[in-house]
Amino acid sequence: MNIPNAASALPDEQRSQWAEIYLSVRRCSEELCVPLSAEDCSIQTAPEASPSKWHLAHVSWFFETFLLKAYLAPYREFHPVFSHIFNSYYEQIGTFRPREQRGFLSRPGFEEIIRYRSHVDEHMLKLVHSAGEDVWPHVQQRLEIGLNHEQQHQELLLTDIKLNLSANPLRPAYRNDLPATPKAIAPALHWQAFPGGIHEIGHQGSGFAYDNETPRHRIYLNAFCLASRPVTNGEYVAFMQDGGYDRPEFWLSDGWATVKRQHWSNPLYWEATDGEWSQYTLGGLRMLDPEEPVCHVSYYEAEAYAAWAGKRLPTEAEWEIAARGLAIAGNLRDSGYLHPTAALPGDSLLQMVGDVWEHTASPYQPYPGFRPAAGALGEYNGKFMCNQMVLRGGSCVTAADHLRASYRNFFYPHERWQFQGIRLAEDA
Amino acid sequence: MNIPNAASALPDEQRSQWAEIYLSVRRCSEELCVPLSAEDCSIQTAPEASPSKWHLAHVSWFFETFLLKAYLAPYREFHPVFSHIFNSYYEQIGTFRPREQRGFLSRPGFEEIIRYRSHVDEHMLKLVHSAGEDVWPHVQQRLEIGLNHEQQHQELLLTDIKLNLSANPLRPAYRNDLPATPKAIAPALHWQAFPGGIHEIGHQGSGFAYDNETPRHRIYLNAFCLASRPVTNGEYVAFMQDGGYDRPEFWLSDGWATVKRQHWSNPLYWEATDGEWSQYTLGGLRMLDPEEPVCHVSYYEAEAYAAWAGKRLPTEAEWEIAARGLAIAGNLRDSGYLHPTAALPGDSLLQMVGDVWEHTASPYQPYPGFRPAAGALGEYNGKFMCNQMVLRGGSCVTAADHLRASYRNFFYPHERWQFQGIRLAEDA
Amino acid sequence: MNIPNAASALPDEQRSQWAEIYLSVRRCSEELCVPLSAEDCSIQTAPEASPSKWHLAHVSWFFETFLLKAYLAPYREFHPVFSHIFNSYYEQIGTFRPREQRGFLSRPGFEEIIRYRSHVDEHMLKLVHSAGEDVWPHVQQRLEIGLNHEQQHQELLLTDIKLNLSANPLRPAYRNDLPATPKAIAPALHWQAFPGGIHEIGHQGSGFAYDNETPRHRIYLNAFCLASRPVTNGEYVAFMQDGGYDRPEFWLSDGWATVKRQHWSNPLYWEATDGEWSQYTLGGLRMLDPEEPVCHVSYYEAEAYAAWAGKRLPTEAEWEIAARGLAIAGNLRDSGYLHPTAALPGDSLLQMVGDVWEHTASPYQPYPGFRPAAGALGEYNGKFMCNQMVLRGGSCVTAADHLRASYRNFFYPHERWQFQGIRLAEDA
Amino acid sequence: MNIPNAASALPDEQRSQWAEIYLSVRRCSEELCVPLSAEDCSIQTAPEASPSKWHLAHVSWFFETFLLKAYLAPYREFHPVFSHIFNSYYEQIGTFRPREQRGFLSRPGFEEIIRYRSHVDEHMLKLVHSAGEDVWPHVQQRLEIGLNHEQQHQELLLTDIKLNLSANPLRPAYRNDLPATPKAIAPALHWQAFPGGIHEIGHQGSGFAYDNETPRHRIYLNAFCLASRPVTNGEYVAFMQDGGYDRPEFWLSDGWATVKRQHWSNPLYWEATDGEWSQYTLGGLRMLDPEEPVCHVSYYEAEAYAAWAGKRLPTEAEWEIAARGLAIAGNLRDSGYLHPTAALPGDSLLQMVGDVWEHTASPYQPYPGFRPAAGALGEYNGKFMCNQMVLRGGSCVTAADHLRASYRNFFYPHERWQFQGIRLAEDA
Repeated sequence: MNIPNAASALPDEQRSQWAEIYLSVRRCSEELCVPLSAEDCSIQTAPEASPSKWHLAHVSWFFETFLLKAYLAPYREFHPVFSHIFNSYYEQIGTFRPREQRGFLSRPGFEEIIRYRSHVDEHMLKLVHSAGEDVWPHVQQRLEIGLNHEQQHQELLLTDIKLNLSANPLRPAYRNDLPATPKAIAPALHWQAFPGGIHEIGHQGSGFAYDNETPRHRIYLNAFCLASRPVTNGEYVAFMQDGGYDRPEFWLSDGWATVKRQHWSNPLYWEATDGEWSQYTLGGLRMLDPEEPVCHVSYYEAEAYAAWAGKRLPTEAEWEIAARGLAIAGNLRDSGYLHPTAALPGDSLLQMVGDVWEHTASPYQPYPGFRPAAGALGEYNGKFMCNQMVLRGGSCVTAADHLRASYRNFFYPHERWQFQGIRLAEDA
Repeated sequence: MNIPNAASALPDEQRSQWAEIYLSVRRCSEELCVPLSAEDCSIQTAPEASPSKWHLAHVSWFFETFLLKAYLAPYREFHPVFSHIFNSYYEQIGTFRPREQRGFLSRPGFEEIIRYRSHVDEHMLKLVHSAGEDVWPHVQQRLEIGLNHEQQHQELLLTDIKLNLSANPLRPAYRNDLPATPKAIAPALHWQAFPGGIHEIGHQGSGFAYDNETPRHRIYLNAFCLASRPVTNGEYVAFMQDGGYDRPEFWLSDGWATVKRQHWSNPLYWEATDGEWSQYTLGGLRMLDPEEPVCHVSYYEAEAYAAWAGKRLPTEAEWEIAARGLAIAGNLRDSGYLHPTAALPGDSLLQMVGDVWEHTASPYQPYPGFRPAAGALGEYNGKFMCNQMVLRGGSCVTAADHLRASYRNFFYPHERWQFQGIRLAEDA
Repeated sequence: MNIPNAASALPDEQRSQWAEIYLSVRRCSEELCVPLSAEDCSIQTAPEASPSKWHLAHVSWFFETFLLKAYLAPYREFHPVFSHIFNSYYEQIGTFRPREQRGFLSRPGFEEIIRYRSHVDEHMLKLVHSAGEDVWPHVQQRLEIGLNHEQQHQELLLTDIKLNLSANPLRPAYRNDLPATPKAIAPALHWQAFPGGIHEIGHQGSGFAYDNETPRHRIYLNAFCLASRPVTNGEYVAFMQDGGYDRPEFWLSDGWATVKRQHWSNPLYWEATDGEWSQYTLGGLRMLDPEEPVCHVSYYEAEAYAAWAGKRLPTEAEWEIAARGLAIAGNLRDSGYLHPTAALPGDSLLQMVGDVWEHTASPYQPYPGFRPAAGALGEYNGKFMCNQMVLRGGSCVTAADHLRASYRNFFYPHERWQFQGIRLAEDA
Repeated sequence: MNIPNAASALPDEQRSQWAEIYLSVRRCSEELCVPLSAEDCSIQTAPEASPSKWHLAHVSWFFETFLLKAYLAPYREFHPVFSHIFNSYYEQIGTFRPREQRGFLSRPGFEEIIRYRSHVDEHMLKLVHSAGEDVWPHVQQRLEIGLNHEQQHQELLLTDIKLNLSANPLRPAYRNDLPATPKAIAPALHWQAFPGGIHEIGHQGSGFAYDNETPRHRIYLNAFCLASRPVTNGEYVAFMQDGGYDRPEFWLSDGWATVKRQHWSNPLYWEATDGEWSQYTLGGLRMLDPEEPVCHVSYYEAEAYAAWAGKRLPTEAEWEIAARGLAIAGNLRDSGYLHPTAALPGDSLLQMVGDVWEHTASPYQPYPGFRPAAGALGEYNGKFMCNQMVLRGGSCVTAADHLRASYRNFFYPHERWQFQGIRLAEDA
């Protein structure tokens, strides 16, 4: 998002800019659902993959709860039960339904949720234009969070749609008009070295960042090298052919237990047909391209691959230091592929941004001195700082204006329905 | 169904009659879905409660599989994957999806399933009119099964819609235009005696019956008495107030374990609000009427109630002997309440037909000499003859022309999402 | 047991006879544990297989609870917590521990349980000799139940020891001194016919019987034939070789689900080694003898075998009518094999008594007019009359003086750790 | 252990010293089992709490596998199946039994395991005295690991005995002769400050350390303060009384889910009787002493307590820096209490060593540059570096000569059967 700059705009102009951004982000969420039927928007095939319409409503609930109810008087909520239905996990707000039962709700139907969105939008615009000067800074701050929150859910919309549609034996495409990924040979992998010593990581400056990217702080690192590009499907197949999923010596103990329990023998969405691998994508089933980055592998698989390759995963600090100078550009959602593409030749680190979220060796922990926000908004990030691993860099379904070098994404080590890939590291 | 009589009609007329019945049964299924949105038709909130659109497609698959593919040449199936998706449990036909994942399928959408139905209907009519005289008897026989099968699923449509909508905190009504049940005081309960000795039970005659109602056979019974009407809500509340759900002495061991595990303390669909009981119905939430028959109780609860009352449940033979002379009339689906109503005064056994399926003390077992049909159709009934209990009499959501005195319904003893109630018996 | 006859003995003599029987039954339980270490007596490897020492204590608790506390004053219980630990399932007596945690109790140790038994024995003898004439009939009645109860647990001791030791990769024998089963060729199977009509089944006369064998009552049966002997291992192997465990058409729906879930492909305790079947027995691992009756098959497997063979299982009434005239003699516990043996030539029905409990097609239900005893003893049988199937005839680990033609044993249809086999029936 | 110093002893003398240490460590394990019956040594009441005799055998298997089979020729293993039974988790050695079924093994009995130990000891002594000079360094190195491994299992013996005996409603004491803990008032808590900057942590020098303590490496830290003593029972009760277990705002998301699922409302082993807290200890049930350090709390509880107190947990680096200068002395196993005791007055950090393992905020991860050992011994630590949290400082059941300031213990965040407590930290 191109956040309005408080210093460079007249008050009214600033409010108009906010209104414009708001509407643009909101419109985008609905556009993502255009290729879907109401029924497509209603299903949930795993606890972690919410129905599309639930996402559409939940992000609206967020504005309703943290902005309209807080700062717009009088405001009457759209429906008294929606707060219970569309609260995701904010314990301090009130009760919420079990996550795995979001697909049970045929009502409110898709159309009603669109009406809910319009209702919220209408009042949000009113708030943006009418909030008193005293509360305006608070409104602005929460608006910024709310819009970033909606962008996160836009990414989840796409990853959840992929999982939900993939459970259908018809293997329906989300969109039949997606462009084919360009045919290319991924350049040979080389190693880029970075010096050790004291570095600073974490968010700095005036732009938006989540609380979990702060405070910026010092860390000490040994010199290290980063692979010039992510691991490709072809390289991953070599791991598989070398018995990767059958040899416990490569795996973390919990990873190996997961492999056995879940009967994993390949990344998510891969299907073997007549000795050939194909891959379910948002454009339907496609032949596996060995040059594309491997995608939909869990942390456990990334770790095992690295062990097999005699390398390791980078820490999030190493990743951030390497990424700091790079432009936020690459195969992101706006590229329109909605699928990782083969790396193109280049001297620098390739595909650090976009294509696939990159697993790091770092557990998701608070930075030194971290303080979550007061009240329910403090539940946004802090309470998840246990048992999850950090991923960096964004993917082919992330909005470009949502990312930063300091951005921290996080998932459980067994999860793999995100667009997750592998970049290797080694000690210098 | 008013099945055409082979003897009394000219061949062509007979085929036209079949076509008419076929269309009438088929139309009814679709009419049941009219009050629902496509999303309503897509959800599944428990393994036993299939989505409405799955029912609509499955019954069509039945005609496609057992009639069109068998007797209509050339016939090209509507979609090659539908046989996998809409086979319920016929192991001899091929693979089928796990029952609990029927709600995962947003595609085929409701509209496509309606097209599937039209496709099947068109070809079914062609078959009815064009089948050679040699196969016509077989066609006729399977058509009859197929139509009865569809009627069964019409009943399941209603029971599953009730369960699926009830999981929604909005407690949406299936229909807002259902008539209120008449206010009435249930007549005092009395006991009607029947003599012991040798009786015959099971289906007899030329009308349609399922294989599980045959062969008709002799049994020996002691004299017994049957309660003149089912147990009412008010009577059941007395059981609850006497600690019914807290006193193990009334319960079967497996029943008591279920009470504890499921935290049962009242029938399904009851909700206590401010010390008053209300009840979710197909018309939405209503105050509990103490005069109506208790409904949505499991076999375990029926058994416990009977133990508390110092009575017992009737066997299915006792029930059938008592029901034999009675008209198939009562509060059935066509009455339009879709909910049990209070008994009206009368001398005979009241509400034997309709209102609620009545639990019997009889495990669902083959009758002496029972032989299931050859091939996959033999899986229709026989393979379920274990661990389930027989219920008799139909309910307020059963089609009148689907019932017979010999009709055997069956459910697991813990299940209660059917319209199931209690009629007591005692030794004479 | 040779129960003292009230009519034929002087009062004192009668009491002495009871004391003698009591001590003899009690001694037997402890003798069964002689081949075991204290650790052997302590383990539980499945919820249904209690530790040996738990059995030894539970049967003592039964005497303590239903006799000593009821009729011997003053009586001080051995330990205040034992009633909680050694109550099996009597809800009306008080709390009891989860069945699956009986193996958690290292204390009381085996030696203390033997002291508990001595304590109970001492007081039981005191009660037998000192009970006033007014309560003596009640004492006598409960004594009889208590001794039969202990005999049932002697059988469970052996079946549970077998299961518990079998879980050990060392496959330890319970006894190394068991005699080998005689080598013999099972005689060819023939069918013995029985007439239809009205019969009576159930217990009759003055001897002991459980409440579930009463009341004696009439039933109507069609003529039927019973196989002259149980199915042999060799015959069962033919079923397996014909794809028995891979062909759903032979199986009940719940049975097939169990086969898939449990990965069954042979009876319990069979192990394939180098293309040969061996079988774990109480004497350790032995080569499978094709002439011996097949053993440790569930009801589901018995049913599937019968379907494959084109026959059926007998009902319990058929079995009882056929067994009525036969002597209670055969390969029972006292024979000392503790394993079924091949049938020997003979004209009559062979092996109706002993060798293996024979599956029947009858769900375990109350007989017409059945009334459980008042109070906690009424929980002995009645509350299990759901979801289980009746087995008849006793096995090679049943005490001879514990059986009758009317004896009803019962297990869930998936259970197979009892010595359970198959006798076929067919319509005449 | 006072490890022999290669430089300061003649070769033969050195070997004798090793033999002496070996026998002393081995003897200790057996002494820990003296208060137990064979049955006590056989039970397992949770997957994580192995039977005592399994520990005794497993540590012997370790010597047999990694020393006797590797370096002593000819060596014949004690029993061919033991390697399968007593391998804990070494995938590269061969198969092993499911952890949760260790309590199923009545055989080998306790006595046979003692014989197994003697067999191993006899051959280990032979190896120590006869190993050629070429392999002697390898033998020495593995011997050191084996002895440390056995010491770890001595600690687990005590923690598992506590859990296993606690499941018994008799609440038996492990030892009735344990000394009472001294009555004392814990000194007021104060904060000790430490400077920020670059520090080094990890093992250094010639003494023994596990691979997970290496390599020593630099880290950057902010200045911080450490609490002068662990949180007491009394302080923890204040947290509980303030609704600690009912207020989600204090808890990590996964922690809160655990509280709800497990119905936690107090630390493990606490029991409320008549409004008073008592606590199960290795000496049986005792009144809770508010001055003793709180014990048997999970990471989740420690984190929630810290959030409630407005503080945080220390990182493992902070802990190690603070502990570096301190003597390895305190309430350790050799003190004989086998229970944490109240802190005594003092100026320095109190109870850093002993009493309770102290939760840290650090996930268990490899140190920068960490390389696990080659082969199966590499599975010792490395494969567990995911999903667990580091604890520091040893407890009242840790052997004094087993600890170091760099020692890293680790458990899953929900586990609490170890002697785990809480020391708070805060930013300077």
